[in-house]
Amino acid sequence: MFSHAETDPVIDKDEARELEADLRIRLLQHQYRRLQQAEQTLLIVVAGIDGAGKGSAINLLNTWMDPRHVHTLAFGKLNKREAMRPAMWRYWNSLPPKGQTGIVFGSWYGALLAEAQRKHPDTEKMAQYARIINRFEAMLAAEGVQVVKLWFHLSREAHKERTERLLQNPETAWRVSRADLKAQKRFHRLRRAGEIAITQTLRPHAPWYIIPSANDDTRAIHTADAVLQALEQPPATRIVADTPLPVQCLPAPERRAAPPERIGKDVYEAQLAHWQGRIAQAMRSRAFSERSLVLVFEGQDAAGKGGAIRRITAALDVRSFDIHPVSAPNAYERSRPYLWRFWRKLPPHGKIAIFDRSWYGRVLVERVERLATPATWQRAYDEINDFEAQLCANGTQVLKFWLEVSKAEQLRRFKERETSPFKSFKLTQDDWRNRTKWNAYRNASQSMLERTSTHHAPWHCIPADDKRMARLKILEAVATALESADGHEPAHQEPPIQKQTSEFS
Amino acid sequence: MFSHAETDPVIDKDEARELEADLRIRLLQHQYRRLQQAEQTLLIVVAGIDGAGKGSAINLLNTWMDPRHVHTLAFGKLNKREAMRPAMWRYWNSLPPKGQTGIVFGSWYGALLAEAQRKHPDTEKMAQYARIINRFEAMLAAEGVQVVKLWFHLSREAHKERTERLLQNPETAWRVSRADLKAQKRFHRLRRAGEIAITQTLRPHAPWYIIPSANDDTRAIHTADAVLQALEQPPATRIVADTPLPVQCLPAPERRAAPPERIGKDVYEAQLAHWQGRIAQAMRSRAFSERSLVLVFEGQDAAGKGGAIRRITAALDVRSFDIHPVSAPNAYERSRPYLWRFWRKLPPHGKIAIFDRSWYGRVLVERVERLATPATWQRAYDEINDFEAQLCANGTQVLKFWLEVSKAEQLRRFKERETSPFKSFKLTQDDWRNRTKWNAYRNASQSMLERTSTHHAPWHCIPADDKRMARLKILEAVATALESADGHEPAHQEPPIQKQTSEFS
Repeated sequence: MFSHAETDPVIDKDEARELEADLRIRLLQHQYRRLQQAEQTLLIVVAGIDGAGKGSAINLLNTWMDPRHVHTLAFGKLNKREAMRPAMWRYWNSLPPKGQTGIVFGSWYGALLAEAQRKHPDTEKMAQYARIINRFEAMLAAEGVQVVKLWFHLSREAHKERTERLLQNPETAWRVSRADLKAQKRFHRLRRAGEIAITQTLRPHAPWYIIPSANDDTRAIHTADAVLQALEQPPATRIVADTPLPVQCLPAPERRAAPPERIGKDVYEAQLAHWQGRIAQAMRSRAFSERSLVLVFEGQDAAGKGGAIRRITAALDVRSFDIHPVSAPNAYERSRPYLWRFWRKLPPHGKIAIFDRSWYGRVLVERVERLATPATWQRAYDEINDFEAQLCANGTQVLKFWLEVSKAEQLRRFKERETSPFKSFKLTQDDWRNRTKWNAYRNASQSMLERTSTHHAPWHCIPADDKRMARLKILEAVATALESADGHEPAHQEPPIQKQTSEFS
Repeated sequence: MFSHAETDPVIDKDEARELEADLRIRLLQHQYRRLQQAEQTLLIVVAGIDGAGKGSAINLLNTWMDPRHVHTLAFGKLNKREAMRPAMWRYWNSLPPKGQTGIVFGSWYGALLAEAQRKHPDTEKMAQYARIINRFEAMLAAEGVQVVKLWFHLSREAHKERTERLLQNPETAWRVSRADLKAQKRFHRLRRAGEIAITQTLRPHAPWYIIPSANDDTRAIHTADAVLQALEQPPATRIVADTPLPVQCLPAPERRAAPPERIGKDVYEAQLAHWQGRIAQAMRSRAFSERSLVLVFEGQDAAGKGGAIRRITAALDVRSFDIHPVSAPNAYERSRPYLWRFWRKLPPHGKIAIFDRSWYGRVLVERVERLATPATWQRAYDEINDFEAQLCANGTQVLKFWLEVSKAEQLRRFKERETSPFKSFKLTQDDWRNRTKWNAYRNASQSMLERTSTHHAPWHCIPADDKRMARLKILEAVATALESADGHEPAHQEPPIQKQTSEFS
């Protein structure tokens, strides 16, 4: 794999100048074309032997391309905000929009490379990390984020020689880091780690390029050439989906609109106060201050999502939650993968994020209204299960409520909204239009319940024709979940990608 | 001022129920109207005596309004990211979009209230804090962010009684904080601080409401009523501009397109390398790791902004800067005050933010193309001076470059772009169109140079007909500024608003 790079090839000076002139024009041409089309984000993952000159190569790329549209995304030690979220959060959070280019230092390969560098690496762990990476990159590719990966390499002798040369000159000595010096000693392990990482994550839609790095011109030309190859490619049309997350799907919960019993106002109010008190209490527990909660509300129009949410928030300190009403994504959000806007709203520890409609829009409204192609919404089930598994593995509880309302009860509520002074604002033409697609929505929600009710994040189907019973059921579920957080074990069997605490790698 | 509130008025239960029913309907009506119109953001500033039940009142507001569109913005101790930016950054950063409501705990009144609570408050300091607040709120009002301020108040006796009552009941004892207990002892000072703050910052466009808080119903009704009054108001049309920042304007720098001398290629390259080396060196200084740099580039199309930026970034570690190309704001950005998108991009310590075009768009393109009314772009000069003063007071250096190119040289460059294979992408129809408005742009830029070349952030006018000389001048200015950072004193005479490090207040 590295045999060519380890011959430390040297490009002739004159030839390099000629190649450079040509490469620069084409890099700019394709960069501007991409900007105009705004169909794809390009992410360049930077990895390789420490001290191979990764930084210089990327600096150069910034000079050859228009740097106003190239973003360097450098990730080091986790900061506090990052440490409270799933490992992938930091990458999602800084994803450039379509048309632009990001260069990633300290990427999601950190955990895999760290394990692969150990004296006795754990094969199963490495395979798991690789699967997580492969699923992530396949999802990105399908969503218009192209990933190319550069491995900067040279022979051990050339590495030694380069480090010594830099150290000798006081003007360049600062360029040599401790990691570079360590790389000499651990060269064979780094090399093996590279081999493992490349072998396990090489995909047609996310290729690796090995960049011979002993010679400055050679490294520059190869880097620019790899990026140019990536830029020249049209958006990937056939993504090889990677092994999906081995999810334990539960049987779809039973749907019933009418609750088994009705309940009087007095009993309702007493019970409401009871569950609100338990929620308030549980929120103040020590255990919860180190985890977080995500609540998802889905259901037909007028199923009672808003009312249920208000009964929960009444029990909470206003500083402890955020409510995210979800409607069609705006242009800003559409320039990223559809899960992006939800990743950005994940709560820190001790907080609750409440989603009034959610990422399930992709398999509900987008499916029914044909805003997404069948291939797109069909792959979403796996993507969503994977997303929620990452939340759970991070200690974030995910509670999903499907509020089941009957067609007759919905009609009654629409009519009530038409006449009530403070409900009329809630009713729009869309609501009536959606009602005509009742069966299509029913089918879509049924598939959703079947494909995404998982062991780690099950759906709660709430009979919603009676608002009081529905609210009590939901409050009970929230209270119980919060109270169980103490002994709560991440339910998913696949460990999260190890959070990286090392320096840039 | 507090005499009514200190009678601790009590609203009759039945009357309260009746008022509540009416208030809730109208709150919701106006909330939805505001959402539909999306013309104004409402910010509710929460202040008052600790232990007056501010939290409960706001909780209730969340129940009475649709909480999906009400955001609680609670600010406590500064975190690391906030500590590196000007004091107002945290508030800018979390500003809700138009149509929505934000409730602010721990607001920009913290510093003023803290000073006013001291045994011997510094009158001049308080006046300065009040001026900063007043300028900020006037600017917000002019930009469609309505601010209303609630002061929760009760008599000292009622405060004592309320605290003791809560403490006695184990179910409510947790509601009493240390600040609440301290408030008993320091009641008179808190009261005086409130008086000072209210007197100095009461404005027609940013009113204070005093909320009698001894009785739960009374507090609830008054809170809802104050918010309703605010919601009922149409967007403010006549804002009383507050005392502008006392800025030392420098004489507008002289504009000359042709540099005094031309320079050969060899000399240019040697000098370029020299200044790049000095910049690289200065960036690694200890002093710079505790400050940051903002570079602003303005100038006619083809003046050479991009080329100059590339010569700077070539000297920098790619991880140490961000380039922000600025064009027309998108819908997401238009739903906030125009400075918002720039506040969000302020660099942390040790970093450089490079703006290729900037907030000066308001007084250049928006003025010339009539995208802003005369009143709007005229007030922008003060707003911009104020913004930059806050940056400087925070230790962020602001370097502004106006690249002056002649009309003839611009034409030559346009033609060159038409024919060059890797420049043709840079030329658009807009460029030709803007050229027809040469004189209008010239007038606008002249006013800009006269009104915003300040002692704390002067404009550098760069003769740009010769690209080499222009780049060298710019690099020299950047290097000199970075090197002088060591002894750099915040140049502006008005101190920044004191950064708040206390708990929620």
